[in-house]
Amino acid sequence: MTTPPSTDRPDTDRPTATHNPASGVKHMKWWGWGVEGVAFHFDDKPKFAPFVKQAVGLDLSGEAPPASVDFSTLTVPAPKISDDLLTELRGVVGSENVISDDEPRVVHTYGKSIRDLLRIRSGDLPRVPDVVAYPGDEDEVQRIVDLAVAADAVLIPFGGGSNISGSLQPPAGETRTVISLDMGRLNKVLDVDEDSGLARIQAGAQGPDLEEQLNKRGWTVGHFPDSFNHSTIGGWVATRSSGMQSDKFGDISDITRGVRVATPSGPLVLRPLPSTSTGPSVREMILGSEGRLGVITAVSAQVHRLPEERVILAYFYPTFDAGLEAMHDISLLDSRPSITRVSDAGETGFTLATAKKTSVGQTVLFKVLQRRGWDLDKMCLSFVGFEGTKAHVARQQAAVKEIVKKHGGMGVGKGPGVLYDQKKFDTPYIRDFLLDWGGAADVSETAAPWSRLKDVYYNTIDAAKQAYKELGIDPGWVMCHLSHSYHSGACLYFTFAFVYGDRDPLPLYEVVKKAIQQSFIDNGATLSHHHAVGTEHSPWLSQDISPAGEKIMKGLFAAVDPGSNFNPGKITS
Amino acid sequence: MTTPPSTDRPDTDRPTATHNPASGVKHMKWWGWGVEGVAFHFDDKPKFAPFVKQAVGLDLSGEAPPASVDFSTLTVPAPKISDDLLTELRGVVGSENVISDDEPRVVHTYGKSIRDLLRIRSGDLPRVPDVVAYPGDEDEVQRIVDLAVAADAVLIPFGGGSNISGSLQPPAGETRTVISLDMGRLNKVLDVDEDSGLARIQAGAQGPDLEEQLNKRGWTVGHFPDSFNHSTIGGWVATRSSGMQSDKFGDISDITRGVRVATPSGPLVLRPLPSTSTGPSVREMILGSEGRLGVITAVSAQVHRLPEERVILAYFYPTFDAGLEAMHDISLLDSRPSITRVSDAGETGFTLATAKKTSVGQTVLFKVLQRRGWDLDKMCLSFVGFEGTKAHVARQQAAVKEIVKKHGGMGVGKGPGVLYDQKKFDTPYIRDFLLDWGGAADVSETAAPWSRLKDVYYNTIDAAKQAYKELGIDPGWVMCHLSHSYHSGACLYFTFAFVYGDRDPLPLYEVVKKAIQQSFIDNGATLSHHHAVGTEHSPWLSQDISPAGEKIMKGLFAAVDPGSNFNPGKITS
Repeated sequence: MTTPPSTDRPDTDRPTATHNPASGVKHMKWWGWGVEGVAFHFDDKPKFAPFVKQAVGLDLSGEAPPASVDFSTLTVPAPKISDDLLTELRGVVGSENVISDDEPRVVHTYGKSIRDLLRIRSGDLPRVPDVVAYPGDEDEVQRIVDLAVAADAVLIPFGGGSNISGSLQPPAGETRTVISLDMGRLNKVLDVDEDSGLARIQAGAQGPDLEEQLNKRGWTVGHFPDSFNHSTIGGWVATRSSGMQSDKFGDISDITRGVRVATPSGPLVLRPLPSTSTGPSVREMILGSEGRLGVITAVSAQVHRLPEERVILAYFYPTFDAGLEAMHDISLLDSRPSITRVSDAGETGFTLATAKKTSVGQTVLFKVLQRRGWDLDKMCLSFVGFEGTKAHVARQQAAVKEIVKKHGGMGVGKGPGVLYDQKKFDTPYIRDFLLDWGGAADVSETAAPWSRLKDVYYNTIDAAKQAYKELGIDPGWVMCHLSHSYHSGACLYFTFAFVYGDRDPLPLYEVVKKAIQQSFIDNGATLSHHHAVGTEHSPWLSQDISPAGEKIMKGLFAAVDPGSNFNPGKITS
Repeated sequence: MTTPPSTDRPDTDRPTATHNPASGVKHMKWWGWGVEGVAFHFDDKPKFAPFVKQAVGLDLSGEAPPASVDFSTLTVPAPKISDDLLTELRGVVGSENVISDDEPRVVHTYGKSIRDLLRIRSGDLPRVPDVVAYPGDEDEVQRIVDLAVAADAVLIPFGGGSNISGSLQPPAGETRTVISLDMGRLNKVLDVDEDSGLARIQAGAQGPDLEEQLNKRGWTVGHFPDSFNHSTIGGWVATRSSGMQSDKFGDISDITRGVRVATPSGPLVLRPLPSTSTGPSVREMILGSEGRLGVITAVSAQVHRLPEERVILAYFYPTFDAGLEAMHDISLLDSRPSITRVSDAGETGFTLATAKKTSVGQTVLFKVLQRRGWDLDKMCLSFVGFEGTKAHVARQQAAVKEIVKKHGGMGVGKGPGVLYDQKKFDTPYIRDFLLDWGGAADVSETAAPWSRLKDVYYNTIDAAKQAYKELGIDPGWVMCHLSHSYHSGACLYFTFAFVYGDRDPLPLYEVVKKAIQQSFIDNGATLSHHHAVGTEHSPWLSQDISPAGEKIMKGLFAAVDPGSNFNPGKITS
């Protein structure tokens, strides 16, 4: 088995190849997450194979499966586009920025959900965008929006292509020309209003791009979703993203103070405002709109001075209940930490299994915990992030220490937190690794009031296990963490995985996914906290926001986009 | 001159009369703000008359003008409603809760803007609701909504009737039957989810009603707009209200986690969620919708434990610029106070002029300030509110003290803050007092990024003065305070007043109002921070959210309410 570069080096986790040399825009692998040449491996993780064997019954001791898919084996439908439209598109963005080659079209077909990966690995490409256009400025975006309406074409905006809710693929039966509008050339921080803590950022800027540009000036957006390395601020807005430091910096809906959108009615300009009373919020209609109201071209985002101090501390709790209660107490502090996160016992086991080696300190610690009567199979790892002035960080640490103690937890210092901070963006690589071995994994996350969280947790775990049982999958895996705390509730983030062997994985996935999503709704939680609706979650929309809510949303889309030219079929069908 | 009860006793500031004894619902005066028998007087405020003379040239030394309007002098148009619809309405809410008497219909015609007060005092009643219905529960509201659609009637929800943006009056030329739906019977806190800090509150609950019910259980919503004593939570949501402690508790858009609305498509149920990723936010479409999408029936609001300590401290700054800069620095603290407020020199003078007597301490203080070189005509009064644990309050006070010092300010303790806290809801009474004397006053408030605030302030003051000059009003008055701080900006709240004497006040008002509103837009500020659009601000909507934004909003209204039955003409025409 050839060892690819390890994912332990996230600083290399930026794509270097491009399908459009003129644009310089880089994309993830067409068949999986992240950068060509970077993949997960477990050579230096002695506990990983035993963990996987126990969790999903997969034996990793044998020969590694052959490397991934060969693009030449795919059958890519020929592009359907009139010469007139092609000429007009070229006239707007230049011939070099209108691409109809197979591989870039395939890259722009899907996001990175397990459904997307399974379909692309099996060559299931019922509808591929006919052309990819790379606009260079806001005016070009508006002109393409106008062209799409005039030509009755379908337009699908593309940021980093990282979404996992089916927000990107063209409808299978779409007979009109489908244009993928790649926003990658619009990747600049245009300016920073230092007096107001507001930055104007082009929609196609990916996480590292915009943070690098801002950090140089001493600022940060503070938005770090798991997809950070490969997602754009326009995509964050279009899907209602939330970053792991949202307790302090807010969700993207809080961070976004103004936005510019190329709409069928012309340029929508919402100037940056701290707050406003201008009727139903058009800003909050653009947030989460997944391209259905037009194309986001720039965002006025709240930015913060880089903090004097930033630290992530790790804690263990004897049970997940104790951890949840501690996170709740922390959320009620007079001022909140930046990160509150606690994994259940399963996810704690997974995290420990991806460590390179067991330190002497850890061995000693676990013995101490056992002597105290802890069941190590039930204990839960937690991270709390602190940032601000040194005095503020020290004060918060002291307050959290009290709460941890109250709930029978134990602080274990900075070590695990540093590791978490470095590796936080790498988990998606493991999914591709599992797929190579015949295992499927994906996530479902939600949010609910504090009073409902335990019900949501236990009932969802049960629902997933019941689904596995019905499917004859034994063992199937489901684990969970709490992240993103609010005054009135928090996010619960479930990861599930199973080995499908010779069976068709997609129907199996659908049963497990459906059980988890329905459990969310039945227990007072939402269909997604920060992964959007897309096509994957739209079956639950009416149950979540009620039939009248879905009707209002459909009415909005029909009013703004009567021709259904803009990313049709997403959110509502 | 008979002295009415003083407004110095806000605990008496609740209406006792009702037009519908069956309902028990109480209303403000038909001709002005607040409670019958309570009015502003200046007998015990020695500096008030000299201040008014200097500010607007009004001589208060003469005989008080005769008492207000006599209802019997009004010509109220007869109600236009079919017997069928009347029978149907009675069938839903009971005969005793369907009222067609003149006075309640007039009470339900207008809000309390200066335009509303001038029109009602002059008997200008082109269109009055034909009937007032008082539903007793959510189901009755939905049935009336359905009736209105079926009968092609106009339905206007009515909370406390306190709005000042023209959100209530029926269009002058409306030929269909107009139903005013008074929500006053739905005034209960239904339950409190103590684990989550969420209360379900019926939409018709007025501020004191709901705070009393919550306080008994140890909770508060923390939402205290100036209209608090006479406005409802449904109205707060429908107009995007913000309370004076929003720095800590958030605007009503933050506080509202779930909402129930009777819509033309049936009951809209948005369950309480801390955060969600369900596409364009329907919750944020209901917020600010002013009845155009249906009738809000209940709100799931964030509630907080009553704080261990709550204190408002007063400070003086040598200039308004220094005060603005201090508020900005305070907003950047690791954790925010609950109130940040600073008045300009004019408003400081006004506040000092409404004090009962000048204390010895104040006289000494002002001498000290003068010795330090302060120009007392330029100094600015500020309030900062602190709440939370005692330790937290002490820490925040210390941090604010540093900032005040940095900007050359001086702390003056709790005295003025206590006074402010007691009198904060009384200012609207002064407007009725002024009207009796031939003076008109109203307010315009806005929000803008910190970098724009000084421009907004100085240019708006200039714009108002220029308007007065063009109108030949000398002196005309305009004053301002900053309140409601955010990371990226703050609210500026302008109050303007002038004496119209024998001239028609409305055209004069319109020139001044227009100058102020246009200055907001021209300087990067919004048409309103927390007073909604209504009809008064709709001329600026397109400039504020761009023509495409207004088109999106119109599309939403037309899709949800194709018959234009729900509060037509508000927000967008």
